[in-house]
Amino acid sequence: MTKPTSRAPLSADLLPATGAWRVGDPVGDRRFVEVTPGRPFSLEGGGVLRGVTVAYETWGTLAPDASNAVLICHALTGDSHAAGDSEVGGASKGWWHRLIGPGRAVDTDELFVVCVNVLGGCQGSTGPSSIDPTTDRPYGSTFPTITIRDIVRSQKAVADELGVERWLAVIGGSMGGMQALEWAVMYPDRVGGLVAIATTAAASAQQIAYSSVQRSAIVLDPNWNGGDYYDAAPGAGPHGGLAVAREMAHITYRTESEFAERFDRKQFDSLDTGFTAWQRFQVESYLDRQGEKLVRRFDANSYLAIARAMDLHDIGRGRAGIDRALARITAPVLTMAIDSDALYPPYQQEQLRDLIAANGGTVTHGVIHCVEGHDGFLTCPDQVGAAVAPFLAQLRNHPRTEI
Amino acid sequence: MTKPTSRAPLSADLLPATGAWRVGDPVGDRRFVEVTPGRPFSLEGGGVLRGVTVAYETWGTLAPDASNAVLICHALTGDSHAAGDSEVGGASKGWWHRLIGPGRAVDTDELFVVCVNVLGGCQGSTGPSSIDPTTDRPYGSTFPTITIRDIVRSQKAVADELGVERWLAVIGGSMGGMQALEWAVMYPDRVGGLVAIATTAAASAQQIAYSSVQRSAIVLDPNWNGGDYYDAAPGAGPHGGLAVAREMAHITYRTESEFAERFDRKQFDSLDTGFTAWQRFQVESYLDRQGEKLVRRFDANSYLAIARAMDLHDIGRGRAGIDRALARITAPVLTMAIDSDALYPPYQQEQLRDLIAANGGTVTHGVIHCVEGHDGFLTCPDQVGAAVAPFLAQLRNHPRTEI
Repeated sequence: MTKPTSRAPLSADLLPATGAWRVGDPVGDRRFVEVTPGRPFSLEGGGVLRGVTVAYETWGTLAPDASNAVLICHALTGDSHAAGDSEVGGASKGWWHRLIGPGRAVDTDELFVVCVNVLGGCQGSTGPSSIDPTTDRPYGSTFPTITIRDIVRSQKAVADELGVERWLAVIGGSMGGMQALEWAVMYPDRVGGLVAIATTAAASAQQIAYSSVQRSAIVLDPNWNGGDYYDAAPGAGPHGGLAVAREMAHITYRTESEFAERFDRKQFDSLDTGFTAWQRFQVESYLDRQGEKLVRRFDANSYLAIARAMDLHDIGRGRAGIDRALARITAPVLTMAIDSDALYPPYQQEQLRDLIAANGGTVTHGVIHCVEGHDGFLTCPDQVGAAVAPFLAQLRNHPRTEI
Repeated sequence: MTKPTSRAPLSADLLPATGAWRVGDPVGDRRFVEVTPGRPFSLEGGGVLRGVTVAYETWGTLAPDASNAVLICHALTGDSHAAGDSEVGGASKGWWHRLIGPGRAVDTDELFVVCVNVLGGCQGSTGPSSIDPTTDRPYGSTFPTITIRDIVRSQKAVADELGVERWLAVIGGSMGGMQALEWAVMYPDRVGGLVAIATTAAASAQQIAYSSVQRSAIVLDPNWNGGDYYDAAPGAGPHGGLAVAREMAHITYRTESEFAERFDRKQFDSLDTGFTAWQRFQVESYLDRQGEKLVRRFDANSYLAIARAMDLHDIGRGRAGIDRALARITAPVLTMAIDSDALYPPYQQEQLRDLIAANGGTVTHGVIHCVEGHDGFLTCPDQVGAAVAPFLAQLRNHPRTEI
């Protein structure tokens, strides 16, 4: 029974225990900044981190008056490599390379573009795989709970370091949109415009449910070892659990109709027997590849920490509710929905639009028509760009009165 | 980090390795029939089982001419206990007890109702937890691949045993509907009517994807032990993997809006700190309960075998395609869709209706308006009954000409 029902073993059997970038790995185009030099970084949940560093990348040239800086915020498994081609020590192509670049919608001939690996991440910023300076060991199980607000607060250090008094715009999809919203609420003076794509004011019960079950899959992997697996031998990290979590998530990022069109009931490899019902289906091997790709570049504990931060996302927490929180936003807003997104359904972005408008805010709403569901903000960048480019142009042509 | 991100441990720590019914357990109302006495049972995929037994339950009285027999087919984790109250050795209440009973839509004052635990199952029928008579050990990893057609072929033994030449109707939802369809295609002379609810002519890519990832979660559990875990000490069975699989599946059985309405972002237990963002959410503990409930009554290998049988479901296999296969159906058909079902979307049942009608079949279509999604065939039994009762009445009043 094992053969037809179990997953194919990861061909990545001898991968390191974590896909995290570690000190000593090639830095690529990463730059680093210490968030609160010489002081601890206090977290919303009460934890404290010391020596917090975030990694970031930039594209384009900052104008002398620093008026052309755009912050791109990445999603759950993203990193600072939002644009550009393949590089040593980084992701292959930038995850939004079709949106960001010379002559593109986010035009690096005109704009100075910044993307920061999130706190809790694993591609250069302090996260569970980083060395805790108080123990000289990876944080692992001791890494504290973080929130989107902690992530945003750590990103402010990059703005300060670069001399960006106010972002022309903060742009993000999914968890990136959560950060963009928090930026505009936490630091209204420092955000000139806000683009929130396929995101939500607060994680919904179903989003929490999917996230929770994905974390359970990681925890189920004996190689996760309570979160302390960084000393594991090659191949003995929590690859299986992280892969299953990713595969589960990936189904929710896409759509029934895309899968039907793309895979239907096609077999992975046809034998010559003429009766191949017992082979694996193509969609199964496709999912395995998604899992394996993530395992190569991600860290299981980062997945746990960041997914939990997403569940805790509630723009209204401690602010008398969502409506009152959104009223704090002073920047012009572009909200965007993806019509086929079942994970972050369009009603969530319509709620953002409606509440911001009801509070007197300036808001434009766009809909991306894309069969790929939630992943549409990545797979349909031209539609994202078609709305983002004029929004940015308007921000540049009609800057807000100085505060 | 472990606390807020990991799942609560199963309170079922000392459960037996399998939730399967085993020989020696109380039989409840189960009856048993050997499928091919004295002969091996050959499977579609080439496997062979010996001494195959299926367990079934009945309600009501078979008419002298055996014209009032209705077969109920259960879904993935169901069993033969479709109706009636709690009993020793069985599920609590019958899983369709609001539909089936005296004076109910499937009226046991008038009808003789039968439900058979599927081959591969774990509540009395031969499955992976059964003893292989050739080794005197549980099948475990050696249990062969089965299909819906094998399941239906094994059920025919019950019809023969009971003297039911032709079922008045075969009724099922989800995987039960797959069986009902196969009954009508494989044995058209023995099916007087067919009710197929929230089911499909062939498993879709997304259905296979979800199923595949659920199986991966079970296989990931070290206690699964390659499928041979029946000797494990109490508490050492693959409970974690089966629970994660169930939790994942359960989200897909329900809907975003039901979860939003029911759970929103409510915390599981509020501490007195006034700031409870770090507690688990109610939806998380709810999912844990779903997992734990299944672990108490189900077998991980049965989940693997039956979920795979569902993936392999393709009414058109070896029959020149779905259209030609459905043309073999001679019985009147009632198809039913659930308007909020994202896992078996209404287009799948509409396809059944359209193809059966296009082939000259008699087909009625009903829509269940229910917020619970795919589970609607279980949670909204009154709407199921409102369509099934008149369909059954029509079958009784206008029996087909004898063949």
